[in-house]
Amino acid sequence: MGTENMEEILIKANTLIEALPYIRDFNNKTVVVKYGGSAMLDKRLEENVIKDVALLKLIGMRPIIVHGGGKEISKWVSKVGKEAEFVGGFRVTDEETMEIAEMVLNRVNKYLVQMMQSLGIKAAGISGKDAGTLVVDKKYVNGQDIGYVGDVHHVDTSLIDTLLDHDFIPIVAPIALGRDFKSYNVNADDAACAIAMAEKAEKLAFLTDTEGVYKDPSDPSSLISVLSVDEADELIENGCIGGGMLPKIRNCIEAVHSGVSRVHIIDGRRDHCLLLEFFTQKGIGTAIIDADKKLYDHEIFAQK
Amino acid sequence: MGTENMEEILIKANTLIEALPYIRDFNNKTVVVKYGGSAMLDKRLEENVIKDVALLKLIGMRPIIVHGGGKEISKWVSKVGKEAEFVGGFRVTDEETMEIAEMVLNRVNKYLVQMMQSLGIKAAGISGKDAGTLVVDKKYVNGQDIGYVGDVHHVDTSLIDTLLDHDFIPIVAPIALGRDFKSYNVNADDAACAIAMAEKAEKLAFLTDTEGVYKDPSDPSSLISVLSVDEADELIENGCIGGGMLPKIRNCIEAVHSGVSRVHIIDGRRDHCLLLEFFTQKGIGTAIIDADKKLYDHEIFAQK
Amino acid sequence: MGTENMEEILIKANTLIEALPYIRDFNNKTVVVKYGGSAMLDKRLEENVIKDVALLKLIGMRPIIVHGGGKEISKWVSKVGKEAEFVGGFRVTDEETMEIAEMVLNRVNKYLVQMMQSLGIKAAGISGKDAGTLVVDKKYVNGQDIGYVGDVHHVDTSLIDTLLDHDFIPIVAPIALGRDFKSYNVNADDAACAIAMAEKAEKLAFLTDTEGVYKDPSDPSSLISVLSVDEADELIENGCIGGGMLPKIRNCIEAVHSGVSRVHIIDGRRDHCLLLEFFTQKGIGTAIIDADKKLYDHEIFAQK
Amino acid sequence: MGTENMEEILIKANTLIEALPYIRDFNNKTVVVKYGGSAMLDKRLEENVIKDVALLKLIGMRPIIVHGGGKEISKWVSKVGKEAEFVGGFRVTDEETMEIAEMVLNRVNKYLVQMMQSLGIKAAGISGKDAGTLVVDKKYVNGQDIGYVGDVHHVDTSLIDTLLDHDFIPIVAPIALGRDFKSYNVNADDAACAIAMAEKAEKLAFLTDTEGVYKDPSDPSSLISVLSVDEADELIENGCIGGGMLPKIRNCIEAVHSGVSRVHIIDGRRDHCLLLEFFTQKGIGTAIIDADKKLYDHEIFAQK
Amino acid sequence: MGTENMEEILIKANTLIEALPYIRDFNNKTVVVKYGGSAMLDKRLEENVIKDVALLKLIGMRPIIVHGGGKEISKWVSKVGKEAEFVGGFRVTDEETMEIAEMVLNRVNKYLVQMMQSLGIKAAGISGKDAGTLVVDKKYVNGQDIGYVGDVHHVDTSLIDTLLDHDFIPIVAPIALGRDFKSYNVNADDAACAIAMAEKAEKLAFLTDTEGVYKDPSDPSSLISVLSVDEADELIENGCIGGGMLPKIRNCIEAVHSGVSRVHIIDGRRDHCLLLEFFTQKGIGTAIIDADKKLYDHEIFAQK
Amino acid sequence: MGTENMEEILIKANTLIEALPYIRDFNNKTVVVKYGGSAMLDKRLEENVIKDVALLKLIGMRPIIVHGGGKEISKWVSKVGKEAEFVGGFRVTDEETMEIAEMVLNRVNKYLVQMMQSLGIKAAGISGKDAGTLVVDKKYVNGQDIGYVGDVHHVDTSLIDTLLDHDFIPIVAPIALGRDFKSYNVNADDAACAIAMAEKAEKLAFLTDTEGVYKDPSDPSSLISVLSVDEADELIENGCIGGGMLPKIRNCIEAVHSGVSRVHIIDGRRDHCLLLEFFTQKGIGTAIIDADKKLYDHEIFAQK
Repeated sequence: MGTENMEEILIKANTLIEALPYIRDFNNKTVVVKYGGSAMLDKRLEENVIKDVALLKLIGMRPIIVHGGGKEISKWVSKVGKEAEFVGGFRVTDEETMEIAEMVLNRVNKYLVQMMQSLGIKAAGISGKDAGTLVVDKKYVNGQDIGYVGDVHHVDTSLIDTLLDHDFIPIVAPIALGRDFKSYNVNADDAACAIAMAEKAEKLAFLTDTEGVYKDPSDPSSLISVLSVDEADELIENGCIGGGMLPKIRNCIEAVHSGVSRVHIIDGRRDHCLLLEFFTQKGIGTAIIDADKKLYDHEIFAQK
Repeated sequence: MGTENMEEILIKANTLIEALPYIRDFNNKTVVVKYGGSAMLDKRLEENVIKDVALLKLIGMRPIIVHGGGKEISKWVSKVGKEAEFVGGFRVTDEETMEIAEMVLNRVNKYLVQMMQSLGIKAAGISGKDAGTLVVDKKYVNGQDIGYVGDVHHVDTSLIDTLLDHDFIPIVAPIALGRDFKSYNVNADDAACAIAMAEKAEKLAFLTDTEGVYKDPSDPSSLISVLSVDEADELIENGCIGGGMLPKIRNCIEAVHSGVSRVHIIDGRRDHCLLLEFFTQKGIGTAIIDADKKLYDHEIFAQK
Repeated sequence: MGTENMEEILIKANTLIEALPYIRDFNNKTVVVKYGGSAMLDKRLEENVIKDVALLKLIGMRPIIVHGGGKEISKWVSKVGKEAEFVGGFRVTDEETMEIAEMVLNRVNKYLVQMMQSLGIKAAGISGKDAGTLVVDKKYVNGQDIGYVGDVHHVDTSLIDTLLDHDFIPIVAPIALGRDFKSYNVNADDAACAIAMAEKAEKLAFLTDTEGVYKDPSDPSSLISVLSVDEADELIENGCIGGGMLPKIRNCIEAVHSGVSRVHIIDGRRDHCLLLEFFTQKGIGTAIIDADKKLYDHEIFAQK
Repeated sequence: MGTENMEEILIKANTLIEALPYIRDFNNKTVVVKYGGSAMLDKRLEENVIKDVALLKLIGMRPIIVHGGGKEISKWVSKVGKEAEFVGGFRVTDEETMEIAEMVLNRVNKYLVQMMQSLGIKAAGISGKDAGTLVVDKKYVNGQDIGYVGDVHHVDTSLIDTLLDHDFIPIVAPIALGRDFKSYNVNADDAACAIAMAEKAEKLAFLTDTEGVYKDPSDPSSLISVLSVDEADELIENGCIGGGMLPKIRNCIEAVHSGVSRVHIIDGRRDHCLLLEFFTQKGIGTAIIDADKKLYDHEIFAQK
Repeated sequence: MGTENMEEILIKANTLIEALPYIRDFNNKTVVVKYGGSAMLDKRLEENVIKDVALLKLIGMRPIIVHGGGKEISKWVSKVGKEAEFVGGFRVTDEETMEIAEMVLNRVNKYLVQMMQSLGIKAAGISGKDAGTLVVDKKYVNGQDIGYVGDVHHVDTSLIDTLLDHDFIPIVAPIALGRDFKSYNVNADDAACAIAMAEKAEKLAFLTDTEGVYKDPSDPSSLISVLSVDEADELIENGCIGGGMLPKIRNCIEAVHSGVSRVHIIDGRRDHCLLLEFFTQKGIGTAIIDADKKLYDHEIFAQK
Repeated sequence: MGTENMEEILIKANTLIEALPYIRDFNNKTVVVKYGGSAMLDKRLEENVIKDVALLKLIGMRPIIVHGGGKEISKWVSKVGKEAEFVGGFRVTDEETMEIAEMVLNRVNKYLVQMMQSLGIKAAGISGKDAGTLVVDKKYVNGQDIGYVGDVHHVDTSLIDTLLDHDFIPIVAPIALGRDFKSYNVNADDAACAIAMAEKAEKLAFLTDTEGVYKDPSDPSSLISVLSVDEADELIENGCIGGGMLPKIRNCIEAVHSGVSRVHIIDGRRDHCLLLEFFTQKGIGTAIIDADKKLYDHEIFAQK
């Protein structure tokens, strides 16, 4: 083993040691990772997300993955000769579309399980239908019936808790049971948010196709690292937050008000975005926290 | 409430009381139900099977459902313009077929979950990939590579056990993880048999399209109620058992040798076939048991 | 097995399936059965009551039997040449009578245990003295001292809970420990009621020699199936309830106010009266429930 | 507090301290006390036995009392105008006698419970019928049928274990369940012995009307303190042990061979005989131990 | 064994029986023993204290020992050529003195462990630094910095609780962790008091060099057996309590207000002082209790 | 955050990910770290060892530290005017020396606790005397009595197991209880080895002042990374291993034969030597393993 090599290894050891206060403070904490968008379309990114979550599990956290799969659904819808239709951003979901959506999402679900298993970490793929985990009412978009699309009515955490307590990583497909016991599509962001709130999760992380929240959307250097819910409310009022980011931020604010300590909006297009956000002082995206900005011990320490 | 009505109710009460010794003897015992064939194609039969399993759970048994879905797969294969191909009874499974099979089976899986949930009983749908429950090697049929079809290498019962211990009914789709961490199709009978053996189940029940095993296949009145494994070996040697029944019976014999107390071959086309087989003195199908014919207390009692 | 036979069996299977929603809703619920009167004097009725309770246990309920034995006591009192004496319905109990009462009730107690054991169900017979389960103060009837007769002061549920938690059916003789650590007789209805309240039982069932409560006692067709406590209060005020039924109904009302969900007054002279009352829509006796008439899921469902 | 008084108290403190090694070595050990004979007929002796057992419980042992009641049974048999009849030392037990025996023994049982409760210690009185604790076959004395008298077939320890584990002292009446599910009388010595063996008790103590075993029965100074099973066998062969002591010693030998560490034959007519035997170096009766004479730590220490 | 001897033994048995109500009432209760002063300087007294605590453990209490060691520290300080210095009764503690104090106290600690082990009782010696059991702020005496002397900031009971729950006797040296993670001396009385309050102990006993609290310090016959906190406040106001006793009594009052049932001031120079105080009606020292003078059952009983 | 900075962070993330298979394979495994020599004399090295152990704990291992302190003892021995004396490498230990050794080692012990606590990780410092963890016989060096020096007779793991199970890191000083209940010095290597064997530890790591084992001690490039016990035996026979390394290697061989999977000899003078050895493919020291060279999953994988 050459001298040069040795130095490299020492740097690595120091990196592990630097992670020590983070690992200590995150120990036994629940984190919900909403996984979707670009992060799902690239094999390398995909592997990195799964590895990040595996690591969170191994160092003692309780991770839950909630995933999407919209583009894959559209692919299969057209494969059987149908045309995708959207109203107000929501997919119009007739019975056949629902059938396809369920098939596709469950397959994505088991694919993620398979990747986790290949790392030697036990994962269990479920949908919101299993054990009545996600129960929904039919959603109306501006009063319009768009088929089998649901609004979360309540979350039954018994199955997810059982899995977490026995060291399985729950991977959840955003399909729900209606109160009429039919299958419903549910927005993956909403599902992740509902589960994080029901679990009183420490963290909820959205892997998105954006770097985070900007003070001035036209200025890339105005990315905000930490945002209190009050500041978020202000940004919404001032019109700084709009478009697809608006419902996401509303979800974040609701989650924090319901007891989730921090919601992270992270750029899923970056390798190891979860580790970069969680294990560095400043992070790479935007963390939304409550007004009192409760800090982790390692943050308090770092301020001294 | 009229007199006539009262009499009817009393008969019902007596029926419940007659079930008492069965319920007592089956308490806390694990039963694996292989659900497939015609029983899956008729809405009423379907509901009855689910209700039977729900009842087994409610009276204190630990039921596991392993299901098939062959016809539904073929339907979707043709829907996307492919032709189904079989070698030696096994579906030739290229990557696209595997993808479809996985989508279809997972959807069937969640559909069964949904039916169970609608009865107010908690079910969790998993595939053999989850937590590495079913791990397979590639299967060669007469030396021929037929794609993603697997032979069970081993069963990891940790996830199923966790679900059973926390009162969820596990419903298992016969998709497995290869030792190369790819997806594989696995015969549902084989999957059910492997799980029953790994769980040292009390009972393994195959819901089939036949009434059971006949002494003389040409004589419907020669149905055998109870068959020891030795007698089964003999019937095979004598050529009385052949066709599709042969591998099934071989599975049964192996299961009994591995510690499953009774394997039942039941006619899935009959309403409430599970209850009829389990809760009557004679049953409606064929029960295969070990050479010593260990009896339940209620059977010993009935003989007196 | 002939066709006719088969049909019969199918009817039985359907009966079991009909019981499913009841079994589900009663799962893990505690039920106290006060067993006395005519139901104790007929061998066949006796066996049926024990079988009914055994079944409640097997399907997942937590039954407790509290029994009487008045007629048997009188028989033995006269056997040793004494004369039974009553004041205001209560047996005057001198030391010798108390000794006889205790001997007789404990023997009845063990006889019930024995019947339950013969069904293969574990039962443990205790008296209210064991582990200080029932502690009483001396009762005065209109200021008169009638000897060793007690009013329940408090219930210590530790022994009963231990037995229930370890799957033994507790069978309780209505003998209590005075706060002076002497033996006291206690009315079996009162004992059952006190235990049901202390256990916050789901159900308390009195097996009586009447069909239930009538709107008009002179009209057998006026039997009331379900009665709220408010309606019961009214019937008492209107003088519709009197005689031996009055203290029983007062017990029922107190029990419901203390958290017992339903109190059932059932005709113990009917075969399988417990099953008939619990497992049918309308029941055969009178159920007393709180003013809000909280329904079971199977009842809500039936109303739709 | 005067000086004299103080000295007395100090002596008491020293007594407690002397008990320390015994308490340490007996901690969590099961002891079965067969309580009968003269010790049951004197109020003061009775109280002392109960207090001794209470103390054993409080210092961490797991005591079980098995009691007799022969004289009380005879009293009641004659009270109802019957004559007691014995064959080979066993009571001829017809149905009526059995009924009386059961009534009387259960009452004695609850009386002992009551005494224990009055000391503030929780006791639960059961008979061998409860939970099938003692199951017997009919006993034939020299081929003669003497009615409802049983030989222990097996012991089901589940109820006794549950009671011990939850800090109740089990007090057991020697009535058993036949394999025909009828009531049987069983010799209290036999019952105690069978329970001690099934529980692999540390100690089994017989409270008798004799001081212990003598080398020479005619010489009161020849009392043996410690006797190995081999020496006991020899004494039997030499005819030194005879009469009522013979079956008792045979019981003792069987118990030691089955894993009971020490069997004590103690004079129940002495106040606090249990404490005197257990908590002194030499004891007051005869201890029968296995050939290797395994010693307690406090004995090993005392020898140094 | 002579007659005389027998009598002696019987007296001993009676002594054990007399202890019964105390053992019952103290069962599973936590007691903190502050061990210091003269009781630590005499080999025989030392052994007696350890035996007393061992006995408390064996009869079911949960004892914790907190010890001092002042004289031993002074001896070693001078051994290395330093001079001991005190301000307002507190040892001025520079770094070297702290080092010596820690060495000495830990050695005393292990010496006590060793004595307990030699009785066959498991003990675990810890200091307040272990697991952050005692965390302190620097103490200023009249504004003066006297070095590494601390005031208890908080107690982390996790380690002590773990030890108690697994049947080890915790023996605690009064060294604490500063919030600056340095070592601090802490007064042993204060440490014992803080631990007793954090544990909501039943009893806190100070072994002192005085007999207890006197109404009139000049009159040895005015020793007070039981003192309510209100009466204690009064005695302080009246100037009856002063000197070294004053801070001790203030500790006692604070302890009682924080949920410790009784604080005992006992003469540690007396053999078996703990047993004499705890197991006699009147005790030998002074017990400080809350204003309502909540009594033990054995005291209530004794009053009757 | 500049681009350059980002790259650095990404490298760190990759380092964490590289650790993933190690963390997975070491999860819940016990590791005993013998900490002594130079690694104890340098503040920076000291902190690094403690941080390494803290990290092992945080990622799910069960670390135990056994430490030495020889040089510190000598310092204090001379401080009180005595001269250190050695026979055959062992310190001649009279009573006063033993007293000093115990004081010094316990102080070192609590100092390590304190460092661990300052990282926010709970540690509990014990000696081998606590709960009789290390019990020794007197050691004779070539027949010579050298005072209070012991050979390990047996290890009682109850206290260490309790601490590990409740998430405290046990830090053990090498002082033992003689079977005569006196204090004994015990060689820290021997203590670590005995504890590792009793715990059936996965790993035992000796932090030494050498790089490891050399094939040719005169050639620094001949360091052996992995050595089977058979090869180690051979090296001893060939005389390649000698001096202070000889007893260490004998300890290693014994440990592996007794069920410890790997014993590591590591250069304690290197920063983060534990991480470097455990978390790299080749390690930095010498690992001694059994003849079959059982590999970790990550090693099997790396070979492919």
